[in-house]
Formats: sequence, C-alpha cells, structure tokens
Amino acid sequence: MKIDKIAIILFDGFETLDVMGPVEIFGRITNCKIHFISIDGGFKTSSQGVSVETTAISTPEFPILLIPGGQGTRCLVNHHDYIQWIKKQSQYSSLCISVCTGSALLAKTGLLDGVKATSNKLAFDWVKSIGENVHWQSKARWVHDRKYYTSSGISAGIDMSLQIINDLYGRETALSIAKRMEYIWNDDDTNDPFSAQ
Amino acid sequence: MKIDKIAIILFDGFETLDVMGPVEIFGRITNCKIHFISIDGGFKTSSQGVSVETTAISTPEFPILLIPGGQGTRCLVNHHDYIQWIKKQSQYSSLCISVCTGSALLAKTGLLDGVKATSNKLAFDWVKSIGENVHWQSKARWVHDRKYYTSSGISAGIDMSLQIINDLYGRETALSIAKRMEYIWNDDDTNDPFSAQ
Repeated sequence: MKIDKIAIILFDGFETLDVMGPVEIFGRITNCKIHFISIDGGFKTSSQGVSVETTAISTPEFPILLIPGGQGTRCLVNHHDYIQWIKKQSQYSSLCISVCTGSALLAKTGLLDGVKATSNKLAFDWVKSIGENVHWQSKARWVHDRKYYTSSGISAGIDMSLQIINDLYGRETALSIAKRMEYIWNDDDTNDPFSAQ
Repeated sequence: MKIDKIAIILFDGFETLDVMGPVEIFGRITNCKIHFISIDGGFKTSSQGVSVETTAISTPEFPILLIPGGQGTRCLVNHHDYIQWIKKQSQYSSLCISVCTGSALLAKTGLLDGVKATSNKLAFDWVKSIGENVHWQSKARWVHDRKYYTSSGISAGIDMSLQIINDLYGRETALSIAKRMEYIWNDDDTNDPFSAQ
C-alpha cells in the first residue's frame, strides 16, 4: 500500500500538532495529497487558533483516514450522528489512524472493540470509559493492530507517522524523512515515558 | 516579558512544522494570541499543502515575531522589498525568533551581523552564504543571542520554543507543557545530532 490520498478529519477544537505533525511527514511522500475533511465543511479551528478549510464529505472515498484528538472530542463523542459519520468513514478506510484522544471518537463507533489501542495518557481514564471493550494499552507510544494505528498524546503522532512510513516504505525512507525534519525519532513503541505505569 | 501577542510570518512555501510546532507551544500560554501575518495578506500555503489566512501588516506592532523556514525562503531572500519588510518587523520586535531557514531571511536584513545564530543543517552552506557576517553555529540545536532565538531545522523549533518558555516563565512551566504534549524535550542546545560535525 502506498500513501497517495489521505484524509484528515478536522473539527473545532482539534489539537494543532495532532494534525500538523503527521502532515509534515505524509506531506513529504511524493504525490501524496492530503485532504482536510469534515462532516459539514467550512473552516475548523484548532484549540491553538489555527483555522483550516475543510471539504464536507458524505460518501467515504479515502483509503487512509487520520482522526486527531483535542478538546473538541470531549463533546463530539456524545453526538450520535457525528459518531456514525466517523464510523462510516473509518469502515471504508484500509488504514485508520488516530492521534491522542482521536481514539475516543474511534472507540465510540465500536470498531475498536477487541482491538489493541492507546491514547493520550493524561486523558486515559476518560478514553477508557468511552470504549470499555477496547484492549487499551497503558504503556505504548503507539499501537498497531489490524488496520488501526493509534498513538499516545499529541507529539506521539509524529513518532507513529514515521513508523507508518517505515511499515509501508521501509526503514530507510522513514529515517530519511526524520533526518530532513531534524527530528529525533523515538522509534520504539514501548518507550512511553508518559505512561502512568 | 510575557507572551501575550505573537506574530508568525507566513509565505507560500513555508514549512508546516516550523510554524505549527511553536503554535502548539505558545498557544498553550494563557491569554496568548497568535497572529498570522504577511506582507500582502490572504492565504499562504505550506509546502505540505496547509493554507492559513494572514493579515497584511505594514506598520510593525508585534513585540514577538517568529519567522519560519521552508522552500519559500529560497526565492524570498532575493526580493529587496520583502527583506526590507522583514527588517522593519524584526527591528520593532523585542524578541525575534526564527526556525530552520527562516534565519536566512533574517540574515539577509543584516540584523544578524555579528550575532550568533544557527539554521537547518542540510541547508547550512546556503544559509551561510546569505549572511557572511553572522556568527553561524554549526553545532547547536538552537542559539540565543541578544533578542534573537534561531533554531536548527524544522522540529528543532519545538525544542527552542520550550526553551523560550523556560527562559520567560521558568522550567516548571516548560516541563509542564512538554508533558501535556507528551513531548520528549531535547532541552540541551548543544545536543545537535544533525550537525555535520
């Protein structure tokens, strides 16, 4: 599988770096087009004040989907129609990625039931309460199980994105991107200094 | 000095993470308002396809200024009017920050003459050629000299921004922000694994 078309879901109150870390990495793949999508289109603004225009998507069409976290997820997990929209988009995708509390939205769909996953460690109890049948991993920088990649909080999305490049394009490509970003890649998914344990 | 009003200069071909790493950090300071500015206003699009609306600014008004790098700098260093605009904005600021090749734009103004500074290590020879009287530091994650903070490439802007928080608000605040971002802060400016030396 190659990354040529990726959709990133935005909503008001998304966390800036949950989105822009992966954008920096996937945007370096030749011919990769990043689409910002939402349930209703228009501009969506991050908790840090970054507004990005989105396209309203009804029928799923993206093989790769990324769901960020952020304060906005706290409210959205309780919106039935929104969760059904997330579910429809996620079911269609061949690769479904979440950063931080994006995994709460994904968990609420039920699609992570029986799947190993992780999330932001400072919000871990809340996220666990959203998906009681998910096999939550309390000590993991990121988790890959079946078609799902889920990362810990915010900056962990950068480490996970490099791992996805590693898995799809090989280690040399991942290391090359990290070098060009001058990024000190934490490439060990078990190295999670922010775990409570 | 407290961070309550910061201007980030955008141009077509800015590097996404050069901007959004610092935005994630400064956006966490209570009552800090981040302004995206440009010489002519309108939307500016990063090399990774992120479009952000900017306000055209003529008369300088921002005490803190951040200049990102990216492919766009390669052309802009040769635009006399643009460099004069950068100079005017930078002269006004009490704190002038650059990430990656943003230091090439700053160097071209002459304001960095005799000042210690650094830049992206893969573009270092080019940046040095832009400002031959700058005291370029070839091994530094970031450099602080007088009112200037300049960082190495892309992700180094995150480490430097946390250092700025450290210097203005204290170490506890910087560590707290890093923890909430689940970010493994490289807090040693001499730890520069991407230096050629």
